[in-house]
Amino acid sequence: MKKINVGVIGAGSWGTALAISLAKKGHRVNLWAREETLFNKIKKSRENIKYLPGVLLPENIKLYNNIDDTVKDMDLILVAVPSQAVRNVLELCKKNIKEEAVIVNVAKGLEKNTLLRISQVVEEILPKNEYCVLSGPSHAEEVSRDMPTTLVAAAYSKECAEFVQDVFITPKLRVYTNPDVVGVELGGALKNVIALGAGISDGLGYGDNAKAALMTRGIREISRLGQVMGASTNTFAGLTGIGDLIVTCTSMHSRNRRCGIKLGEGMKVDEAVDSIGMVVEGITTTNVAYNLSKKYNVDMPITTEIYRILNEERDVKEAVVDLMMRSKTHEIEEVANDVQWKDS
Amino acid sequence: MKKINVGVIGAGSWGTALAISLAKKGHRVNLWAREETLFNKIKKSRENIKYLPGVLLPENIKLYNNIDDTVKDMDLILVAVPSQAVRNVLELCKKNIKEEAVIVNVAKGLEKNTLLRISQVVEEILPKNEYCVLSGPSHAEEVSRDMPTTLVAAAYSKECAEFVQDVFITPKLRVYTNPDVVGVELGGALKNVIALGAGISDGLGYGDNAKAALMTRGIREISRLGQVMGASTNTFAGLTGIGDLIVTCTSMHSRNRRCGIKLGEGMKVDEAVDSIGMVVEGITTTNVAYNLSKKYNVDMPITTEIYRILNEERDVKEAVVDLMMRSKTHEIEEVANDVQWKDS
Repeated sequence: MKKINVGVIGAGSWGTALAISLAKKGHRVNLWAREETLFNKIKKSRENIKYLPGVLLPENIKLYNNIDDTVKDMDLILVAVPSQAVRNVLELCKKNIKEEAVIVNVAKGLEKNTLLRISQVVEEILPKNEYCVLSGPSHAEEVSRDMPTTLVAAAYSKECAEFVQDVFITPKLRVYTNPDVVGVELGGALKNVIALGAGISDGLGYGDNAKAALMTRGIREISRLGQVMGASTNTFAGLTGIGDLIVTCTSMHSRNRRCGIKLGEGMKVDEAVDSIGMVVEGITTTNVAYNLSKKYNVDMPITTEIYRILNEERDVKEAVVDLMMRSKTHEIEEVANDVQWKDS
Repeated sequence: MKKINVGVIGAGSWGTALAISLAKKGHRVNLWAREETLFNKIKKSRENIKYLPGVLLPENIKLYNNIDDTVKDMDLILVAVPSQAVRNVLELCKKNIKEEAVIVNVAKGLEKNTLLRISQVVEEILPKNEYCVLSGPSHAEEVSRDMPTTLVAAAYSKECAEFVQDVFITPKLRVYTNPDVVGVELGGALKNVIALGAGISDGLGYGDNAKAALMTRGIREISRLGQVMGASTNTFAGLTGIGDLIVTCTSMHSRNRRCGIKLGEGMKVDEAVDSIGMVVEGITTTNVAYNLSKKYNVDMPITTEIYRILNEERDVKEAVVDLMMRSKTHEIEEVANDVQWKDS
């Protein structure tokens, strides 16, 4: 495809990894680092020593500390900041984003207080631009090292999704399209809640059996909420649902899981978050998810327990035991709608 | 519940772990060890040093080397031998199994040549007995150490499933029921094929991103086959489907995954299997699954590539790259049936 101009907002690990991948493909990339110290360091060493050490930035990445210059005249704006910062950074620079630019979001969260998905936040600020969410099982560290990875580009318009697919696809970075924006956004955000839970289970010293059960039930409660909010349950069975949940819950790359492990080991919430040193999206997302479950009246037992651990000093061990070992007898797996017992 | 008499056929790791769990609950358990050496060792030390070292057998487990004495007058027969041995051992002892005994199978495989599920094999030999399959994300090592675990008891009759649930349930071993025997059997068997693939990916040094993508697509192709064979797709989204797949693909406890790792590292099939030292169910299951995909005309790309690796000296690296990086452009994730593009 023809090479385009991309403005990447955010020089965290994921923004940097995607900037590198796009630049290697020949696109012209502007990369915005908000912190001046970080900007100077990367500019000097051509390496994002803080968030993605060990990988050099190709020459066709131009580094900026000024957001307006980063986005000006760009064909595609990649939003790679923490979810709670999306509104502010876009408000800052929206006057310099051209109407034809496609906004691609990779933040995996939901907006605090408003409970909005990122697509809804972006639409409020840039109502005329096309929007696409790019999500999937994709640790930045692996993408930056050219390890095989799959992603999903979800947009309301097929043309937009296929444009983003063409821009990002490489022999090692496989991009699929999906029209289910709501499902892809919810899956990416809510899996971080379950990742906190999986980390807690690991931190408590429970095993693979317990964690697999938690993950299976986790994706099911996410799927229940998603369905009520207009998503396809199939999306949660795909790369941006169970796929992303798997990679997040089983890898030490995940900050959310690592934060959960600290909680399981008995650390206080604030200490655990501080110890990670980067934004732990799952903390805020848990609160939003809990409020969404109330708003839409959907039963989300795992989310509720994590919410109580984070906000009500709920004992982690009791929470996990309660989740795993609810006292009902004759509990039926809530799976078999289309297969019936022969004796009832 | 009232204590019952259980005959456990097979003193491998899973048979032994379940025998211990049942005995601790107060049931009277007979445990059959086929190999005389193993029988003598366990009898002497009260520890299954070969398959489940470090865990003592409670006193109410009686050890047998004679299968007829093991099953005689028992209320429940737990079949815990490799899938290809089920027919033979049941033929051996069927005259001593009473008609009222419930047959509970924990073997996760399909019969070679006949392509039958274990329930179908058991029905041919013991047509009058009730059958139940017990499956889920459950490494024996963790169950024997009382770590929280979930299982699913699937039977055609609700009464039978609930009986098995009552027999096995403990505060740490949570048992759910499910009427979808076909789905539970297929999930348990076919996940071993994907576990071989996940191991190969790991052995090749690919990362968590690639493995998560493989697992996500793996459960989807299993689900496609299952649907054609009469299972509920929901079952594959549950504990015995994705749950068991997760635990198998991410844990070093899994022989199938370990065998895959050896293949990914370049070892020949026979050497890899030998190096594991126990039955690797996934090897046979891959062949059966491949034949089922042909018989039912279901597209199963991962199964097909694993089949070619095992039988046609297909290069492992090429196989995984082909799976991950198929050359189609504009590939849509096959997920969104109920959400449509706005521009097409």
